[in-house]
Amino acid sequence: MPFDLDTYLSDKKKLIEDKLNSLLRNPGAPLGTLEESIRYSALAGGKRLRPILSIAACEAIGGNADKALPLACTIEMIHTYSLIHDDLPSMDDDALRRGVPTNHTVFGEAAAILSGDALLTDAFYVMVNEGLSSGIEAETLCEIVRDISKAAGSRGMIRGQAIDLQIETLAEDGGELSLQDIELMHSLKTGALIEVSVTAGAKIGGSDERQLEQLAIYGRSVGLAFQIVDDVLDVVGVGDMGKESGNDARNEKATYAHIAGIEASKERASELTQSAVEALSEFGDAARPLKEIAQYLGGRKS
Amino acid sequence: MPFDLDTYLSDKKKLIEDKLNSLLRNPGAPLGTLEESIRYSALAGGKRLRPILSIAACEAIGGNADKALPLACTIEMIHTYSLIHDDLPSMDDDALRRGVPTNHTVFGEAAAILSGDALLTDAFYVMVNEGLSSGIEAETLCEIVRDISKAAGSRGMIRGQAIDLQIETLAEDGGELSLQDIELMHSLKTGALIEVSVTAGAKIGGSDERQLEQLAIYGRSVGLAFQIVDDVLDVVGVGDMGKESGNDARNEKATYAHIAGIEASKERASELTQSAVEALSEFGDAARPLKEIAQYLGGRKS
Repeated sequence: MPFDLDTYLSDKKKLIEDKLNSLLRNPGAPLGTLEESIRYSALAGGKRLRPILSIAACEAIGGNADKALPLACTIEMIHTYSLIHDDLPSMDDDALRRGVPTNHTVFGEAAAILSGDALLTDAFYVMVNEGLSSGIEAETLCEIVRDISKAAGSRGMIRGQAIDLQIETLAEDGGELSLQDIELMHSLKTGALIEVSVTAGAKIGGSDERQLEQLAIYGRSVGLAFQIVDDVLDVVGVGDMGKESGNDARNEKATYAHIAGIEASKERASELTQSAVEALSEFGDAARPLKEIAQYLGGRKS
Repeated sequence: MPFDLDTYLSDKKKLIEDKLNSLLRNPGAPLGTLEESIRYSALAGGKRLRPILSIAACEAIGGNADKALPLACTIEMIHTYSLIHDDLPSMDDDALRRGVPTNHTVFGEAAAILSGDALLTDAFYVMVNEGLSSGIEAETLCEIVRDISKAAGSRGMIRGQAIDLQIETLAEDGGELSLQDIELMHSLKTGALIEVSVTAGAKIGGSDERQLEQLAIYGRSVGLAFQIVDDVLDVVGVGDMGKESGNDARNEKATYAHIAGIEASKERASELTQSAVEALSEFGDAARPLKEIAQYLGGRKS
């Protein structure tokens, strides 16, 4: 059967959005504005990259996509919470996200903070509750909760966000930044959750240690390449069209593309994509979606 | 051996604060301001009611307090995150908490939001990581993660907070509130986490279904009594001394004490304390700390 990446991505996106839609309804206790605000951001579209990676990694191990679907959705819930909080006035102060007004501009700051908190907390509830119902072993679920909370917390994403805020201040003050600083920030702020999307999906698929190591390399490489390409697109002015760009000092000064230059950045992204693809060598045809996703992300033009 | 509640409470408080202190150090990756901000709020004192209840419930079942200690600390981490976010300008806009300036007045809003996010996320990491190292079974840990995330998320505490914000608006607009509305808000906003503190501690202690049911009644009753007494103390002007009082419409109009009156509120608190104590009848002497805590909370004068 010929493989078509576009079809694969749009099929999985639909699967994920249907499941998210049902997971984010709380029939026993409708939440009024809070529920509306949660659903507004979680169902606003987006690439759904993280949950698609979870499903594709599960499939690469020969696992069943259905079994990874609830987990995939919880990672998207965590990603969505992080976007809602990042966009707040005291953080990045963004007015647009995924092409629509940011959560706080529509529902107010209090609702935006609470909605983010709810998405983050409920993600762990859904992870365990749905995980147990789909027959995932308790030991595996515990590992997954540990891995994801580690990647999302002060050892991962939140540390990256804290470094990002420091970098912004440094850039505003005219300080010098190294590529290492930027790579560390990216690897924590977006890389950690992307990597764990891959490895958690693989764990549900039943991966062994060796496979996990290879997929962790894949996840790390893809995560960083994705971010560097984002930086490049931002500089050349075709960055994420649903987002305001250039609204802070970081966008102008403290990006990979600004420090290394466009050409070197493209080279680094292509190097990373190569590493990602190489890490898949032993998985054969089952890893074709993962491989094409890496190539697509490393070479995308928008 | 004679039992002295004050000694019991201060011993457990020390145990909890020492453990929290070590859990909230991240030697591999110091977080700078973020770590300072997290530690500032988590180690600012407070009654440590929730973690003490976890430990006392574990002991009531004949379990080992040490085994419940990490879990107890994670519930305090979740409670602390909720205080940091509740105090934000767009929420309750409080300047004092536990007798010291609130997190955002010291570290700024961005750090306060991030610190809350980190405490919440890290709580799940610590729960599973420390839980597995202390030999808690994966099945039990999964149940505990599920119970706590349910109690803290949009099915519990966050729903209560959303109702509280609605009630505040209603009160400002001169709307009528019922005692049922207030009880529902309290049972979600503070009750759910207090109840799960008790039941999660009991699960670590090895409780059976029947014991869990009784302890859930205990937890629910104590949680609501605690909040009603808080309301009464707020009205008579000796509320939580570390907190500003009367700074919003809710404090004046939309409290249990305001609607039911002081006397009826005291009666309801004493009724609830009675139910809590009765629910302990089958546990004998091992539940003495739980019993005295309920009586202390129901009758406290500050």
